[in-house]
Amino acid sequence: MARPGKKMLNDPKKVVAEMIEGLVLANDGRIAKLPHHNAIVRTDLPDSKVALLIGGGSGHEPLFHGFVGRNMGDGAACGQVFAAPSPDIIVAAAKTVHRGKGVLFLYGNYAGDNMNFDMAAEILQEDEDIEVRTVRITDDVAAAPPERVHDRRGIAGDVYAIKVTGGAAAELDSLAEVERVARKAVANIRSMAVAVSAGSIPETGKLTFELADDEIEIGMGAHGEAGVHRQKLTTADSIADQMMDKILADLPFGRGDEVALMINNLGATTMMEMLIVNRRVRQILDREGIRVHRSDVGTWVTTQEMAGLSITLMKLDEELKHYLDLPAESLGYSRM
Amino acid sequence: MARPGKKMLNDPKKVVAEMIEGLVLANDGRIAKLPHHNAIVRTDLPDSKVALLIGGGSGHEPLFHGFVGRNMGDGAACGQVFAAPSPDIIVAAAKTVHRGKGVLFLYGNYAGDNMNFDMAAEILQEDEDIEVRTVRITDDVAAAPPERVHDRRGIAGDVYAIKVTGGAAAELDSLAEVERVARKAVANIRSMAVAVSAGSIPETGKLTFELADDEIEIGMGAHGEAGVHRQKLTTADSIADQMMDKILADLPFGRGDEVALMINNLGATTMMEMLIVNRRVRQILDREGIRVHRSDVGTWVTTQEMAGLSITLMKLDEELKHYLDLPAESLGYSRM
Repeated sequence: MARPGKKMLNDPKKVVAEMIEGLVLANDGRIAKLPHHNAIVRTDLPDSKVALLIGGGSGHEPLFHGFVGRNMGDGAACGQVFAAPSPDIIVAAAKTVHRGKGVLFLYGNYAGDNMNFDMAAEILQEDEDIEVRTVRITDDVAAAPPERVHDRRGIAGDVYAIKVTGGAAAELDSLAEVERVARKAVANIRSMAVAVSAGSIPETGKLTFELADDEIEIGMGAHGEAGVHRQKLTTADSIADQMMDKILADLPFGRGDEVALMINNLGATTMMEMLIVNRRVRQILDREGIRVHRSDVGTWVTTQEMAGLSITLMKLDEELKHYLDLPAESLGYSRM
Repeated sequence: MARPGKKMLNDPKKVVAEMIEGLVLANDGRIAKLPHHNAIVRTDLPDSKVALLIGGGSGHEPLFHGFVGRNMGDGAACGQVFAAPSPDIIVAAAKTVHRGKGVLFLYGNYAGDNMNFDMAAEILQEDEDIEVRTVRITDDVAAAPPERVHDRRGIAGDVYAIKVTGGAAAELDSLAEVERVARKAVANIRSMAVAVSAGSIPETGKLTFELADDEIEIGMGAHGEAGVHRQKLTTADSIADQMMDKILADLPFGRGDEVALMINNLGATTMMEMLIVNRRVRQILDREGIRVHRSDVGTWVTTQEMAGLSITLMKLDEELKHYLDLPAESLGYSRM
């Protein structure tokens, strides 16, 4: 394998600016960048709708800025690599996507994001008279025990939260109703990750954490935050078993439940491995009497070239199913 | 980064069988595996249609078996890792997808695939009275000079060839017509790859080729086949410039042309890098007066955890645009 940080870049200080330029072009006119801010917005926004603003640090592509489009986010505020977007970016993005019915902020629960999105919400409400509601995604069961769910990070569950809320924001006419659906989605999503090797920070080439050649860490966070435990690399089945034990016990998911299932690549893991893990996850769900309504296996929430994957389950009811199953169009996540 | 071959697997000898099991489950009932062969077929095939059979070696997921679905392939014959499917797999798959109107074989131009698909075609025609036509994908401009286009490999252009032909096979009623569209698509697709680091063979953990820590190889094939030249790692812009020079000169693409543009991840490259390369490719196309009708940036044709990317251009006319723009649904490639 390559040395850490062996990447095709130009000026390491300009990775975010150049990435956003490439991202906008890759959307074939469906999104635009704000002239003075690292924020992107749909160009085909209806005249009147509840607006959904997503966002967070760059470096996790296609999250978040790859999920702006029809029945997905209406705009995204982009931070620098692994850093929250500043309040002025969020304010500018929110003002641009606002269509008279308020703005829902939906993002992963990290201290920097919380602070900056909250400051932006205050400014929007006080200076611009724009109503803002906030839903933070907290799907990572490894980040804190169930009684401290508000300390949990948002990881790959971001995708299902955005997908469901994007559908709700397209169809529902009230900010409070869209917020209600987003809260229900988040309350029903649980994820856990396993790290196999680290990714590197594009500006410096430095690895985000250290892991021995024969070790993995179950439950590790997207930036190397401590997980449940570190252990020797073992079989795909054994890894899936450990992760599913924690996920299933947490909501808890039980016999008769219907779920959406996502296997997400943290960056450099092969789809072969993800499919082999998917096989085991389905054996476990079968045994537990849990039915899979919809599957997604792919690359959505990454930490550069980090190897590893996450498993996400969302417990469904008829309403969540409806919004989840709407077609979606964005650079990073599209389905008929 | 991890040592080569640090992967989440069970029995390395069973990777293909377990991968296919996980793949079928990930399709939520839309595809099924044949009981005695490593072949998958759509479960929702119409009663009468020209059948499109794709296939090739495993290990390049989501290619090929991830591209079976509505307006995509009707079935796929799966080989072992980096090995062509055997004729009996191809025959079984073709018999299953056949709906009375013949079968088009569409696959990448590699000696083993050519031999086995040709043997299968002969068997189907002689023993089963099933008409078969064959189109081989030859998009890699680095593999041979233009006068020896029939010696060129199929790489990421596979995706556009399958997308267009899948649409044609859904709408056109004659095998000869579907073949004609497939030939036109292939004749209009050109790709080139750059390798940044090697992937490893899942059964052995061995790297597929060696590349120094500061070197890249422009034009390298999916399995480490020799490219145009090896050089020091340089900027994303300079790499894109070199690749685009060769691609544009080859068809050639010229002022006023309209194209589809794909930036494909060979495995472990970040979407950030791909978007930065996309930015440069669009600058070049602008300068040359070539209009982009549709963009795709993602992970479709891989060689395990190989780092690098490929650039693909398909020159479009109204017919190719029509089939390319039809919605598509498959595990590995979906768009509204």
